[in-house]
Amino acid sequence: MKTLKVDLDDRSYPIYIGADLLGVADLLLPHIRGGEVMVVSNETIAPLYLQPVLEALSGLRCDSVILPDGERYKTLDTLNLVYQALLEKRHSRKTTLVALGGGVVGDMTGFAAASYQRGVNFIQIPTTLLSQVDSSVGGKTGVNHALGKNMIGAFHQPVAVIADVGLLDTLPPREFSAGLAEVIKYGLIADPDFFQWLQDNMSRLMARDRAALIYAVEVSCANKARVVAADERESGLRAILNLGHTFGHAIETEQNYQGLLHGEAVAVGMLMAADLSQRMGALSGADVQGLKRLLTEAGLPVQVPSGMTVAEFHRHMAVDKKVADGIVRLVLLRSIGDAYICSDYDAALLEALLASYCTV
Amino acid sequence: MKTLKVDLDDRSYPIYIGADLLGVADLLLPHIRGGEVMVVSNETIAPLYLQPVLEALSGLRCDSVILPDGERYKTLDTLNLVYQALLEKRHSRKTTLVALGGGVVGDMTGFAAASYQRGVNFIQIPTTLLSQVDSSVGGKTGVNHALGKNMIGAFHQPVAVIADVGLLDTLPPREFSAGLAEVIKYGLIADPDFFQWLQDNMSRLMARDRAALIYAVEVSCANKARVVAADERESGLRAILNLGHTFGHAIETEQNYQGLLHGEAVAVGMLMAADLSQRMGALSGADVQGLKRLLTEAGLPVQVPSGMTVAEFHRHMAVDKKVADGIVRLVLLRSIGDAYICSDYDAALLEALLASYCTV
Repeated sequence: MKTLKVDLDDRSYPIYIGADLLGVADLLLPHIRGGEVMVVSNETIAPLYLQPVLEALSGLRCDSVILPDGERYKTLDTLNLVYQALLEKRHSRKTTLVALGGGVVGDMTGFAAASYQRGVNFIQIPTTLLSQVDSSVGGKTGVNHALGKNMIGAFHQPVAVIADVGLLDTLPPREFSAGLAEVIKYGLIADPDFFQWLQDNMSRLMARDRAALIYAVEVSCANKARVVAADERESGLRAILNLGHTFGHAIETEQNYQGLLHGEAVAVGMLMAADLSQRMGALSGADVQGLKRLLTEAGLPVQVPSGMTVAEFHRHMAVDKKVADGIVRLVLLRSIGDAYICSDYDAALLEALLASYCTV
Repeated sequence: MKTLKVDLDDRSYPIYIGADLLGVADLLLPHIRGGEVMVVSNETIAPLYLQPVLEALSGLRCDSVILPDGERYKTLDTLNLVYQALLEKRHSRKTTLVALGGGVVGDMTGFAAASYQRGVNFIQIPTTLLSQVDSSVGGKTGVNHALGKNMIGAFHQPVAVIADVGLLDTLPPREFSAGLAEVIKYGLIADPDFFQWLQDNMSRLMARDRAALIYAVEVSCANKARVVAADERESGLRAILNLGHTFGHAIETEQNYQGLLHGEAVAVGMLMAADLSQRMGALSGADVQGLKRLLTEAGLPVQVPSGMTVAEFHRHMAVDKKVADGIVRLVLLRSIGDAYICSDYDAALLEALLASYCTV
């Protein structure tokens, strides 16, 4: 087992990365004060993994609430089920929430923890590759609104994260690949050596080799933790983590979150960002082709869904959180492993990019 | 005009206290970055005071959203109206919310600001005495849940508070008195000189003498700011601000928030806390009678609503946030002007107190 410390002053916390960590009480109990726990999971994950977690917590006053599964349930209404359970069971402000599930469960549980009685502790047990490498680091929590993704939320750090790569055995292939998109992202934005390692080891990851997964999760989390530690509240640097997300969110919004998975949309978005970077003279054609090959090897899409138009991209990008003073800021690449935030790109190049990716 | 600084490191902010401050652009504009503003008000206050605020903000991109009036609308559903307005008008994370209204508007606007895009700035313009002395200092924001008051929320500090006592001219007498309950509270918990001043000057306050009001608001805010600065996240000391609130919340909950006003319930609760303190040997009978007289002079109730039972008190107090590890903690008085948090009171004395206040 590897332990990675996310360094955020008095909000610092450990990420435990390994296999067979789920039922290990010694990892959970030191992070629970007050003797009350509410495990939040969903209807897909609970039958697989809830029991060992409850057993590890036996001896505490432990309740659980099971949410419907899916991004479309990441809403204020579903959040209210968590509040309801906490209040019905009379949990005090010393309770600890445990998020057992993927990014949706993690984001909602985190926001419930941020807002129940104005803030209680929470522990993340991410059960998808995406949430292990992405949403378990950074403290972003929240829910979607009909008019925009992740528009309601808070920054709230967990007290611990337990990333058990053994849980990925039950992850459907598409979701596994979607997680790899974010893994590839960390290589692209900040770690050229890791990007090279991914090109050399993608077949091991696709075979869900545990040692390779532990390494990939650890390096991804370490890269993210470094960026987050430098900019916890996303005032600047941290925005580079959104590589591919502005284009990706536009795709997800246009599909009403019922088409590509988040990671799949980000994969397309990263390729578009790399392509635009090449059009601006930064990356080589070989860089972009190498990325396209790696994404394909990881089982990820590299095309905009057919039928989506340039106008639809513009419309959805305009409401994106990365709009400052009316200008859409994009995360672009100076080279593989070196991302930056750009607001003075040539609008004509963006138009040409969008036109080349939109089939209508 | 008086300016009081609330000292919270990088979250410090000024409270401007005076008369005729509402349309003064110079007070508002320095606290608005990014040029976007959303004024949140309610259907009672907006017809009276929205126009001068909008005029002071002319030149900025300024929108407004009008909420229904009343504590029963302090819900997630009403909060969603604010999110909806922000998203429909495409406000970015650089927007500033302005809360123009009483405590309900302030609490909801503050929580909307805490959670819109994970946190934006907000300014408070409290229009009731209660919100001027209480909810505008301390950073507590949130909404009620059907199962408990203020159970969902966040700590989020405003960037400025503008307390215009001229706005109190239109405040109905019951609401004005309810605000006086919190003013009296600051004398009781932390400021014996101010308590004496209140006994000497209650008739001026009841006549809404502006100089007296400015002084009372200033001293109340200064007392609260001192307590909050010492304990921003309510881990200890700050709980003394809840004098009278445990009993008061029980009354409000039992009446489903449709009987006594918050301040009225707190008035009864403070008298009960003082009475229990006397039963424990701390206060004199004269102290308790003096408080009862002052509350009466301020137009406040001094009796538990008829029909409420001891069992109902116990039931509602058990879910109160001040319950730690199953024990209801109470704020009691060592003397007038010296409150403390007590969890080792004699249960029999509490029973006797409740029995003496409950008529059935």
